[in-house]
Amino acid sequence: MTRTIDPTPLSWPDEVELLPLLPLVHAAWVDGVLSPAEVLALRGRVEDQGRMTPGQRAALAPWLDPRSPPTPSELASLATLARRYDVGDVSVATRSLTDLGRALARAAGAEDRWTNPAAGARLDAIEAMLGEVGTDAARRLLGHGRAPDPAQAHTPMCDASSLGRFLDQDHPEVRQALLEHLGTEPLRVPLGIPMAEHRARTLDAVRFLALQGYGAVGMPEAYGGQGDPAGGVAVFETLAFGDLSVLVKYGVQFGLFGGSILQLGTRRHHERWLPDIASMALPGCYAMTETGHGSNVRDLRTSATYDAGTDELVLHTPDEAAGKDWIGNAALDGRMATVFARLIVAGEDHGVHAIVVPLRDEEGHLLQGVRIEDRGLKEGLNGVDNGRIWFDSVRVPRDNLLDRFAQIDDDGVYRSEIAGSGRRFFTMLGTLVTGRVSIAAASVSATKTGLTIAVRHTERRRQFGSEGEPEVALLDHRAVQRALMPRLAATYGLHFAVRDLQRRMGGDAVKEADSELEVRAAGLKAYASRHCVETLQVCREACGGVGYLAANRFGALKADTDVFTTFEGANDVLLQLVAKGLLSRFRHEMGDLRLWGMMRYIADRAGESMSALNPVVTRRSDEEHLLDPAFHLGSLEYREERLLRSVAQRLKYRMDAGMDSFRAINECQDHLLELANAHVERVVLEALQDGVARAPTPGLSEVLSSLAALYALWRIETHRGWYLEAGYLEGNKSRAIRARVGDLATEIRESARLLVDAWGIPDGVLSAPAAGVP
Amino acid sequence: MTRTIDPTPLSWPDEVELLPLLPLVHAAWVDGVLSPAEVLALRGRVEDQGRMTPGQRAALAPWLDPRSPPTPSELASLATLARRYDVGDVSVATRSLTDLGRALARAAGAEDRWTNPAAGARLDAIEAMLGEVGTDAARRLLGHGRAPDPAQAHTPMCDASSLGRFLDQDHPEVRQALLEHLGTEPLRVPLGIPMAEHRARTLDAVRFLALQGYGAVGMPEAYGGQGDPAGGVAVFETLAFGDLSVLVKYGVQFGLFGGSILQLGTRRHHERWLPDIASMALPGCYAMTETGHGSNVRDLRTSATYDAGTDELVLHTPDEAAGKDWIGNAALDGRMATVFARLIVAGEDHGVHAIVVPLRDEEGHLLQGVRIEDRGLKEGLNGVDNGRIWFDSVRVPRDNLLDRFAQIDDDGVYRSEIAGSGRRFFTMLGTLVTGRVSIAAASVSATKTGLTIAVRHTERRRQFGSEGEPEVALLDHRAVQRALMPRLAATYGLHFAVRDLQRRMGGDAVKEADSELEVRAAGLKAYASRHCVETLQVCREACGGVGYLAANRFGALKADTDVFTTFEGANDVLLQLVAKGLLSRFRHEMGDLRLWGMMRYIADRAGESMSALNPVVTRRSDEEHLLDPAFHLGSLEYREERLLRSVAQRLKYRMDAGMDSFRAINECQDHLLELANAHVERVVLEALQDGVARAPTPGLSEVLSSLAALYALWRIETHRGWYLEAGYLEGNKSRAIRARVGDLATEIRESARLLVDAWGIPDGVLSAPAAGVP
Repeated sequence: MTRTIDPTPLSWPDEVELLPLLPLVHAAWVDGVLSPAEVLALRGRVEDQGRMTPGQRAALAPWLDPRSPPTPSELASLATLARRYDVGDVSVATRSLTDLGRALARAAGAEDRWTNPAAGARLDAIEAMLGEVGTDAARRLLGHGRAPDPAQAHTPMCDASSLGRFLDQDHPEVRQALLEHLGTEPLRVPLGIPMAEHRARTLDAVRFLALQGYGAVGMPEAYGGQGDPAGGVAVFETLAFGDLSVLVKYGVQFGLFGGSILQLGTRRHHERWLPDIASMALPGCYAMTETGHGSNVRDLRTSATYDAGTDELVLHTPDEAAGKDWIGNAALDGRMATVFARLIVAGEDHGVHAIVVPLRDEEGHLLQGVRIEDRGLKEGLNGVDNGRIWFDSVRVPRDNLLDRFAQIDDDGVYRSEIAGSGRRFFTMLGTLVTGRVSIAAASVSATKTGLTIAVRHTERRRQFGSEGEPEVALLDHRAVQRALMPRLAATYGLHFAVRDLQRRMGGDAVKEADSELEVRAAGLKAYASRHCVETLQVCREACGGVGYLAANRFGALKADTDVFTTFEGANDVLLQLVAKGLLSRFRHEMGDLRLWGMMRYIADRAGESMSALNPVVTRRSDEEHLLDPAFHLGSLEYREERLLRSVAQRLKYRMDAGMDSFRAINECQDHLLELANAHVERVVLEALQDGVARAPTPGLSEVLSSLAALYALWRIETHRGWYLEAGYLEGNKSRAIRARVGDLATEIRESARLLVDAWGIPDGVLSAPAAGVP
Repeated sequence: MTRTIDPTPLSWPDEVELLPLLPLVHAAWVDGVLSPAEVLALRGRVEDQGRMTPGQRAALAPWLDPRSPPTPSELASLATLARRYDVGDVSVATRSLTDLGRALARAAGAEDRWTNPAAGARLDAIEAMLGEVGTDAARRLLGHGRAPDPAQAHTPMCDASSLGRFLDQDHPEVRQALLEHLGTEPLRVPLGIPMAEHRARTLDAVRFLALQGYGAVGMPEAYGGQGDPAGGVAVFETLAFGDLSVLVKYGVQFGLFGGSILQLGTRRHHERWLPDIASMALPGCYAMTETGHGSNVRDLRTSATYDAGTDELVLHTPDEAAGKDWIGNAALDGRMATVFARLIVAGEDHGVHAIVVPLRDEEGHLLQGVRIEDRGLKEGLNGVDNGRIWFDSVRVPRDNLLDRFAQIDDDGVYRSEIAGSGRRFFTMLGTLVTGRVSIAAASVSATKTGLTIAVRHTERRRQFGSEGEPEVALLDHRAVQRALMPRLAATYGLHFAVRDLQRRMGGDAVKEADSELEVRAAGLKAYASRHCVETLQVCREACGGVGYLAANRFGALKADTDVFTTFEGANDVLLQLVAKGLLSRFRHEMGDLRLWGMMRYIADRAGESMSALNPVVTRRSDEEHLLDPAFHLGSLEYREERLLRSVAQRLKYRMDAGMDSFRAINECQDHLLELANAHVERVVLEALQDGVARAPTPGLSEVLSSLAALYALWRIETHRGWYLEAGYLEGNKSRAIRARVGDLATEIRESARLLVDAWGIPDGVLSAPAAGVP
């Protein structure tokens, strides 16, 4: 077989005829982007043009034979040929491969045949088959490559401080003041100190925060606070840029212990305890988890039995495995605890309730009947004194029941406005929902710290490069851009999603059960903590050995945040909760159909959107489409809906076949997790797109919309196996998306410094003092 | 549209006609496995049967309409109908969906039409479209589900100790003795101690190992050793089950420092230093990396200039950034170092050579001209005293040049048998190749530790379960099986691959450059260290809070192994080296074609294998095919070959367009990394399949072949986006592979305990003492 292109134009009439197709043929091979089947399909389409002479066909065929791809030098001869023609204005000629083909034909004097609209439309259809972005491929054919030119670097239209102001619109002063504290003693806790010292320093730090009033920000003014729950959240989020033991001990004291008394208790509890909690005069615990029941809190076994004779509640741990476990502040400092226990009144078990139980006297000695064991050294967070607590018939006054939602009246009768122990328990878990949102927020902050360190380092550190030229910054290595930039985009998405959820939750987390907020909090906690753990690892590795130095914080950040994936509900358990929530929400929308009655509804909805798929869209890979926010959100929505339908169908089938719901769910666990992740990713993208819409200047919205596009395409790329299986994408489009992710990462790299600087983390916080260093 | 199946059999003749298709229709919907397009295709094929009456078509059409999927109860009515017939022996009737269809037809008295071979073949072709494994789907239709039945649990045909003997055929006694030491003082180093104490304990441990003779195992007998390099590797691998600071300090002293003198030096160096190195009387360093050049060692800038006047070499650090960095043993204990420096003789730079340079006197005081700085606290490995070293015109005798491959003769003339400074340097890097294999081996050991802890814990710990039944072991949760079992399989694969490489390397690592071994060592180091980091994280999370306790080792394991991805060459750099090696190996095979001359060759090869794809194979999803080792290996080979071709094409295109090689490689970095990973995965699978072939009993080969299948299918599943894009898989097959991965994970779960116990890590090693715990 011979393929020849005579480098002298116009000498072979057939070649002139083929000029319009030359850019398409070249692009088909040059990046190896077409599969053999697609090359054949392209050939079929070209031959279908119906205007080709047998000579033309014979000339073209060898160029589109997958069994014998052209050699690089043969391809180069195509480019050489093309470059001999004067196509006029390059920016016009290279709008697409078809345009370039027409321009070549025109330059060769063969334009009439190819400039008629019908032929043009057919060429456009062929171009759509290619996974290339036409302009890029056309420019490269003419030798106008897209190698990054530092002189033409994209200048972002916004600056770090205006972006920062947009990101942190609420409580900027509180955040700023606290950030300054974080860089100085006593909040700048050294790394590598023994556990006992670490705990002492952490306690000092939390006392300092209380002294500065940071513990009371969220509490009512009547009890010495500022009555600003959102401010409390801002404090927590900002603290998460610093030492995470301090953050967690702060969260235990003010968020969990203080929060449970504020939200589950009533006025007399507030008056009695909140001021001392806010000032750290009364350090306390939040005792929910038991050794035998971690994430499965509904089955807790500690009991609180009402003794009508003495008007007391008797707290008791039935056996070793029912001991309260992992309780922060318990091993050393806690003097009191909010204990979650089954409330038994007159022999009847009313489910889990919260009771305030003293643990230690003012000198720190354990009270009678209370046994506590130190959980000892952990992977991280060693400034927090976690412990296990067992109660041996410990008596507290009836008054210690936190009785906002359920009471034992003076006659010893149990009453609650909320019917059903499940619903009541769920309401009381509101504090847990707040905890989950807080962990999501803290995960985002810790991720921001890691990305800031990594971007600053990789922008400075140079390794390898072209012969005879200065070495290249690590951040200009494509693999580093690919690793860091999509994660930067996801972190922006999570920022908006978590802030949005905080706004929607408002101050009082334990309102009448709001399953949507609960689902969202669980999903964002799981997703943000996973993102944090993975991103910190990527950042550490991008920084190489320097990232391994304790002073650069990755060691502690990784060790401390690792448990974010586990506490406040293990991620896999939370994601299943999300999936179940999505399934039952549909049931809700459908009214009171029975458990799986929503199936038909879901199937119908999915049927509709699926029938909307069409072969043009599944192949469309032009820039306008790939960067279209509606395409992005539509893709993530499609995935969520189709997974929802498929999970419902799988569960239904198994339950119909007589399987109990635990087994059925267990067999479909992967699908439930996939559905939950798909849901959260859609929520994150929506929040990021909403951020674009709200951006106050075009410069801000431009940079944010690039982030949104990168996040969306990165997610589609990651799940492309699923999309291809579903027929939502075809191979050429999937490949075009991968290429586009790389290009966007390179584009955003130019704004990377600005994007991390906008978070405003001071230098003094980005590094940590390390003990034991000479 | 109405779909009705009368529950009374035989009342509607059309339905009887449709009975043979019923199992296919049911399976098409039940798990939501078919895309709309596939349902339509199935309908087309069914209608193509050519034997259908208009009535039959009308009855069938509504059952295969993607815009209106049957409701669950409609599907259930199909099952109800099927179950009314007596199909005889279930195990025969459910061999496939077609078989079941025939059995139903037979039971309804309509068999003659469907039992002829042609009709059967057409039905089989339809069945192949479904991503279901026929037997399972058929059994489920009849209500014979595949819910795990503990009573029928798979009993493995082998035991842990015979598997263990097969895995560790070489040096079982050395391994056993060392494992026992690891569980006791002084090798059982406590966690959570201050850095200074940690370093002291680590030094004690390495001295203890030397005293026991473990430092000399690999050294020649003439110098007090056992002349058994493979034994030295076995020691290193076994040590990696214990404290990793001890491992790394041991590796620095005996592997890097001792190894460099053994392999780069000659007899007089050996006689003078090896005995003291083996006994730890002379602690030393391996000083290669510089601050300015981490992974890019070819550009090191420390110089060693020969001074003919005094017959000395003058070691000099030109500036701060050329200081030797991260050098183990340098901060405190090292008295001497093998320093890699540019050798300059008579004004000529001969490239990087190794020179022995004293650092401290016998009292530990730094020698003149040597400046050392402690690198201080790190994320992990804090028992190792890493430091930075600068030389200010430090003089050493000419004799200190390690001169196996290059000499300065008595006349002060430089000589080397190896022409070309690049090739010479590469030969001298042999010690680095050994180091990389060692890190790969250590990564495998640390992964085994993590998996052993996780499997033992998740097998014991129970959470959640069916109402009224005991809670279920975590390892019986599908998501946990999915997370742990494929990683267990990969760890087995890496075990065989690393052992195989060790065998092939033999004793002398610095033979005449063997690029294949270098490529393999680099690839396995990168892959195994990545696998280790990811698997430890998965294991920690599977263990929940318990995994966060320091005593359960995950904290230290994760922090210590994290840097395995960076030292001895950053993973991304090594993977690019692998990819470049693969590209140039093809060049090699092709003789002396110019740099990109192999392109055509690669393209041709790929063309061949691609044309072998056929639509039956790309859709085939029956059990026999999916479990076929040839399909597994073929898939991984196809990926490697096609990526090789595509990378070559991309690079070639860019370089033809005038881009320099650094820029071209940078633009294709993702593809290079993908190619390198594909290569390593093929190597790992080959090694695992080879292990199956060598297994001495059917029981062993059975369990190993399940692991090989799981590893292969897990990899194909992970890369299914790529395979789908390439047209190598179609959607139904991709989904069948996902289902099969889950089923294999469940199957292997039954042998999980045996598979981890075979590694023989004693209890005393699986937990660690933690300091500071009351």
